[in-house]
Amino acid sequence: MKFEIVRDELLDALNDVMKAISSKVAIPILTGIKIEVNENGMSMTGSDSDITIRTFIPVERDGKELIKISEQGSIVLQARVFSEIIRKLPTNEVKINVTDGLLTLIHSGKSEFKLIGSNPDEYPILPEVKDEHSFSLPADLMKSIIRETVFAVSQQETRPILTGVHWTVEEGKLSCVATDSHRLARKLASPENMPTIPFSFVIPGKSLQELNKILPDSDSPVKIIIAEQQVLFKTDHVLFYSRLLEGNYPDTSRLIPTESKTSVTVNGRALLQSIDRASLLAKEDRNNIVRFSTEDKMIEISSNSPEIGKVEELVEAIQITGEELKISFSAKYMMDALRAIDGQDIEIQFTGAMRPFILKSADDDSILQLILPVRTY
Amino acid sequence: MKFEIVRDELLDALNDVMKAISSKVAIPILTGIKIEVNENGMSMTGSDSDITIRTFIPVERDGKELIKISEQGSIVLQARVFSEIIRKLPTNEVKINVTDGLLTLIHSGKSEFKLIGSNPDEYPILPEVKDEHSFSLPADLMKSIIRETVFAVSQQETRPILTGVHWTVEEGKLSCVATDSHRLARKLASPENMPTIPFSFVIPGKSLQELNKILPDSDSPVKIIIAEQQVLFKTDHVLFYSRLLEGNYPDTSRLIPTESKTSVTVNGRALLQSIDRASLLAKEDRNNIVRFSTEDKMIEISSNSPEIGKVEELVEAIQITGEELKISFSAKYMMDALRAIDGQDIEIQFTGAMRPFILKSADDDSILQLILPVRTY
Repeated sequence: MKFEIVRDELLDALNDVMKAISSKVAIPILTGIKIEVNENGMSMTGSDSDITIRTFIPVERDGKELIKISEQGSIVLQARVFSEIIRKLPTNEVKINVTDGLLTLIHSGKSEFKLIGSNPDEYPILPEVKDEHSFSLPADLMKSIIRETVFAVSQQETRPILTGVHWTVEEGKLSCVATDSHRLARKLASPENMPTIPFSFVIPGKSLQELNKILPDSDSPVKIIIAEQQVLFKTDHVLFYSRLLEGNYPDTSRLIPTESKTSVTVNGRALLQSIDRASLLAKEDRNNIVRFSTEDKMIEISSNSPEIGKVEELVEAIQITGEELKISFSAKYMMDALRAIDGQDIEIQFTGAMRPFILKSADDDSILQLILPVRTY
Repeated sequence: MKFEIVRDELLDALNDVMKAISSKVAIPILTGIKIEVNENGMSMTGSDSDITIRTFIPVERDGKELIKISEQGSIVLQARVFSEIIRKLPTNEVKINVTDGLLTLIHSGKSEFKLIGSNPDEYPILPEVKDEHSFSLPADLMKSIIRETVFAVSQQETRPILTGVHWTVEEGKLSCVATDSHRLARKLASPENMPTIPFSFVIPGKSLQELNKILPDSDSPVKIIIAEQQVLFKTDHVLFYSRLLEGNYPDTSRLIPTESKTSVTVNGRALLQSIDRASLLAKEDRNNIVRFSTEDKMIEISSNSPEIGKVEELVEAIQITGEELKISFSAKYMMDALRAIDGQDIEIQFTGAMRPFILKSADDDSILQLILPVRTY
């Protein structure tokens, strides 16, 4: 293998592949990146067994030559060292040359690295993803879906299925739900050209977080291909594989109340900032519980730490209808939910101090956040 | 105590005081900040016993009223909670009011905090610094001195005196030296109006690092007042106290070679980047040793890790005179020294592969860096 490549292109692709590299892997070769060069270009693969990322740099793009290939081939190089070397090279031209066996020369300017590579034949082959179901979403919609749901997955391995986000395709619509059994986040979308056959799958939260870092902020399409145990997200130059979680995701639809006794409309950002301040004292007691009570058109947010002091503040509501209410909840869950809905006017629907309540945007039903209260009053 | 203050002014001063706050303090009241208000303005004091920082906000500045005082007084408030509250308040107007005993009301907009304060009489009194010796330096010179020396102090408590920087005033000149016994950094300065009586003192490296964060990037004067066990740095609105280290600082002047066998002049940044790259492999072996050898007008930098590979690169020297040389040293020490001299043309003077060598700017004698080599050739 022998080729010349533009450093910046290599570095961009490498930054994507590095998202799959973990220092804690069971198979030593997975601390490496597999590099393959053929007549079309260069591809790099990184994996931690759960996630596999493969990037591709074409020989030329928009008439500009990116790679000059003298000899095709493949090698595996230590991921961390290789990416640091590429980042710090003195010029934008890099020559990579596998000479004697596995010894790999990296040349740039007056700098020459000789890295001891590993045998590419020992690198695990890519998971085969049989196209059982597939559809496409714009990258920016994918990123919204992830941002609005993934924070609510469970951080505990006691019920592994809850560490993932449950995606359901039904009647040409998409529903994405995450819950840690104390709160729930749901995003609905009606993308174009969805399959009509219903199916569902659970993607690990961690995979979605890494995918979110790689996807562009544009509406370029991401093709999603689902097989029995794997999902593949495919963009122009990146393949992102993740294992799927096995097991039955609980039916969450019955948790969501359909009626309400108190309904509060309020500016989301004002409420978020108020709860953020109240949580300054709540955090000190480690429970991080704040109180919320309605009175006329005002919301009172308060919290209390016996050792440090207390805080009370008023937030003006846009509208409050129904019964007066006093309720307590986790400041963290509330702030996560408000951040997901992001600054718009928010409608909160309560069915009593001990019943789950829901938050949504006042003028958009696609995001729903549900939170279980805490008994304190 | 009752007053109104502009939030941004309070926050700036608070950020300075917070530099002295540590979560590991022996005296519980030192987790608090002492607030005092008198007819001139408001002062705040924070301390971790080693460092004490006191800031002052005047009642008015440049004709603009900063504080409206209704009642003078003092209180101690939990530093971390108080500073987070001030940072997150909804408006730029803050009312602070010690009501009933130690209970302190903080009002801003529709937000009201009630903090349980501590008795200000229990707060340690400020160290008394008798003006035995004093002089002034511009703040930006102080910052250069700190940046160019403090990294070389010892991180180990085995010889506590070496964890500080040794400042000596003699014949109206200032010399600042730090060494961890493997390398040494020295900065000389000839500020105006220095005292003629010789004296010296050792300031803990940690104190200087915190001081550096507080000093402005301007030539406004910093008054330095030295007493037996304390030093006080005084700017317009900040008093920064530090304990001094006791004991005799070793005589380092004899360590510095006065002649050389090989002299190399080279662009500092080019050499720094080259060593940074070479250290990518050296780090993996944990010794972080790179080799440096001269040949005609070139410097070869190399390093070697049996498991990962090796790197060799050439750096063009501006001038090399004297004997040919092969030497090995810590990449970290070399990079620290080159960063302190900061990108200018550097002169390196060697007296053999096993003798300490010195680095200085090619056109400025004020900074000197000394490094002990490592035997590998």
